[in-house]
Amino acid sequence: MERLPGFRDFYPEPLPHKDVWSADLRQYIFTKWREIARRYGFREYDGPPLEPLELYQLKSGDELVEQMFNFVDKGERAVSMRPEMTPTLARMIAAHERAYKKPIKWFALPQLFRYERPGKGRLREHFQFNADIIGEADVAADAELIALLIDSLRAFGLTAEDFVIRLSSRNAWQDYFSARCHDHAKAYEFFQIVDKLEREDPAKSDEKLKALGFSLEELNHFIIAGEPTPELKAILDDLAARGLGDFVKVDYHVIRGLAYYTGPVFEAFDRKGEFRAIAGGGRYDNLVKLISGDKVNLPALGFGLGDVVLFELLKARGLLPTCDSGVDVFVLIEDEELRKPSLKLIQDLRSAGMVVEYSLTPAKSDKQFKRAQELKATHTAKLEKSPGGELVAKVRNFKTREEKSGPPDGVRGLLSV
Amino acid sequence: MERLPGFRDFYPEPLPHKDVWSADLRQYIFTKWREIARRYGFREYDGPPLEPLELYQLKSGDELVEQMFNFVDKGERAVSMRPEMTPTLARMIAAHERAYKKPIKWFALPQLFRYERPGKGRLREHFQFNADIIGEADVAADAELIALLIDSLRAFGLTAEDFVIRLSSRNAWQDYFSARCHDHAKAYEFFQIVDKLEREDPAKSDEKLKALGFSLEELNHFIIAGEPTPELKAILDDLAARGLGDFVKVDYHVIRGLAYYTGPVFEAFDRKGEFRAIAGGGRYDNLVKLISGDKVNLPALGFGLGDVVLFELLKARGLLPTCDSGVDVFVLIEDEELRKPSLKLIQDLRSAGMVVEYSLTPAKSDKQFKRAQELKATHTAKLEKSPGGELVAKVRNFKTREEKSGPPDGVRGLLSV
Repeated sequence: MERLPGFRDFYPEPLPHKDVWSADLRQYIFTKWREIARRYGFREYDGPPLEPLELYQLKSGDELVEQMFNFVDKGERAVSMRPEMTPTLARMIAAHERAYKKPIKWFALPQLFRYERPGKGRLREHFQFNADIIGEADVAADAELIALLIDSLRAFGLTAEDFVIRLSSRNAWQDYFSARCHDHAKAYEFFQIVDKLEREDPAKSDEKLKALGFSLEELNHFIIAGEPTPELKAILDDLAARGLGDFVKVDYHVIRGLAYYTGPVFEAFDRKGEFRAIAGGGRYDNLVKLISGDKVNLPALGFGLGDVVLFELLKARGLLPTCDSGVDVFVLIEDEELRKPSLKLIQDLRSAGMVVEYSLTPAKSDKQFKRAQELKATHTAKLEKSPGGELVAKVRNFKTREEKSGPPDGVRGLLSV
Repeated sequence: MERLPGFRDFYPEPLPHKDVWSADLRQYIFTKWREIARRYGFREYDGPPLEPLELYQLKSGDELVEQMFNFVDKGERAVSMRPEMTPTLARMIAAHERAYKKPIKWFALPQLFRYERPGKGRLREHFQFNADIIGEADVAADAELIALLIDSLRAFGLTAEDFVIRLSSRNAWQDYFSARCHDHAKAYEFFQIVDKLEREDPAKSDEKLKALGFSLEELNHFIIAGEPTPELKAILDDLAARGLGDFVKVDYHVIRGLAYYTGPVFEAFDRKGEFRAIAGGGRYDNLVKLISGDKVNLPALGFGLGDVVLFELLKARGLLPTCDSGVDVFVLIEDEELRKPSLKLIQDLRSAGMVVEYSLTPAKSDKQFKRAQELKATHTAKLEKSPGGELVAKVRNFKTREEKSGPPDGVRGLLSV
């Protein structure tokens, strides 16, 4: 019995096979993301992993449905496993924004799904750190959000030599388009061509552009010589004031594929150019209005940072930590007559917050000791009977090999050995 | 645009509406579960939220498919959103058990799905704390697992007056059945009737039992007068040695509905009997063998503890904590000329691990101060220019109202005010 193609199993370390993922490293990454988001005053939210298909069609038409993990449920509803988090966020905001002071700063760690052709290493699900600011039109919000993204990558030991945020502007591209083409309906198609420029054969891009009345040469001139817009300048200044100037540069190659972006947009890339975009985001000032059926109109912006590319990058840079069982004390039960008081000792240590392991069944002393070593336990502890019949606890530090003795109920004190 | 029926939205506290759930309390519950599981030496794992439908049909036949969230995907595969975690675990164990020393102690916090008729408060998804021990046949493992369950509930402040683990034995019921009926095919039907005894009209249960050659009177005698089996006795003794005797009692009403249980089984209930079972579990020594197609044969046991009933119980007992933004410092920017050095200060404080908020845009002093109060910030900090033109940081403790001044780069020291 196999898992479905494109889905991952997460095992505890050390991993049994190269085909599976690490639950420990996933939790390591999630914990960092939560910690950094909170430092920035972002609060956690979540929505259902399944939503009405319509929620995703509203903003992008049917073209994306092809790649969605959608189906018809037993109640005849057209539904989809969530391909991205922003529509859910917009729906939740539209429903209850009045209860929250603006700006609203929220984050989530959703698992997202798509139905792509499966292939080697191509996944149908991944996790994403999503952070959004809602209700603030000023670019100070864009800078705050980008600063959070930078720190969400620095938290893993990545530096300005490892990654850069390429900052661009959908506005600037919209202006570029509008000055040359008056058929607004073609704008999305144009943005899609720009979005693919770096991945597509230049001749093919040029051909597509010419069909819309543009040319690649002219476009490249704008990309290379385009000056930062005043709003991009303000974002750069804000980030520089924080000491984060080295992590960001203006690059009009970036435009973001999704239809709903409206202002500054950005993507994070590894400096060596070995990986796909690590993260991407930008302003989507009209989406909440659209999703709410014109009831709520709030400017908004956000980013998504995926677990898969980040994991690959951290691995390539040697920045993944080693994970183990984290056992504080392995309790040796060498005399089965002392199993019951040993169970009491185990319970007391766990109640004090310690990670405690022991042999569930009778086992030879050396086998128990070996298991403690394998688990990299910091200490062993055992009970012994003194000649006077009293119980004595003996605690040994694995590293220093120091050993201390004392009454069983004082074993917590002995552990500071 | 509404979410799908039976699914939940999780918002940050304070909640905007009684119809939504708390993301903060969900995280509070998850964090406790992880913490306690680790103390017991359990390691985290996870699998896909979508599995081949066949994985669930193997062990239980088609009868449960009716309640499953299953569908046919775009690749014509019969799939199901996971209704429970145990089959995924058994699949993962069967694939890679050789890499792990026995007993394997693993936990997971999956979201689970079912397609039930929606109704008031009836959900189609919930989260579950799952813990399992694989590869140990001795009842010492059953006791270890039940101790973990007890501590997973005590961690929230629940006591032996709030809940009890009702311990029973599928073996004992199997013996009871086999002594009276030789048609093994009827055993599952019989177990289902026993499982529903406390919820169903006695006359109806009696009728069903009689159809199988049993009677309710006879059954009730066994339930009330049945002695603990030797294995249940051993589990009770182990738990008593840990000081957990008050949390468990033998009660043969419990049998567990699922087909795959084989040995001791148990459920956790609130003592007042106001809620459904909080948790349930037991031995399933044949499941890994079944799922692996006879390749791997390992005894196993586990429990599931759901977030919804636990949440309701904690709420009823007044044990839910209040959650807020956790802001350590609100940085006041009263002079816009000092915004840039203030951004530097904010960055420094966040880099030191503090939760820092500030007004993204220019705002009056009293409005900023009011926002700091609303957020229950522990401190405010602000920069001022001294008459000599030097920057001075002023830090104020909201509770003690104590204020201290110093150079901006020493503000971390001032925060210990």
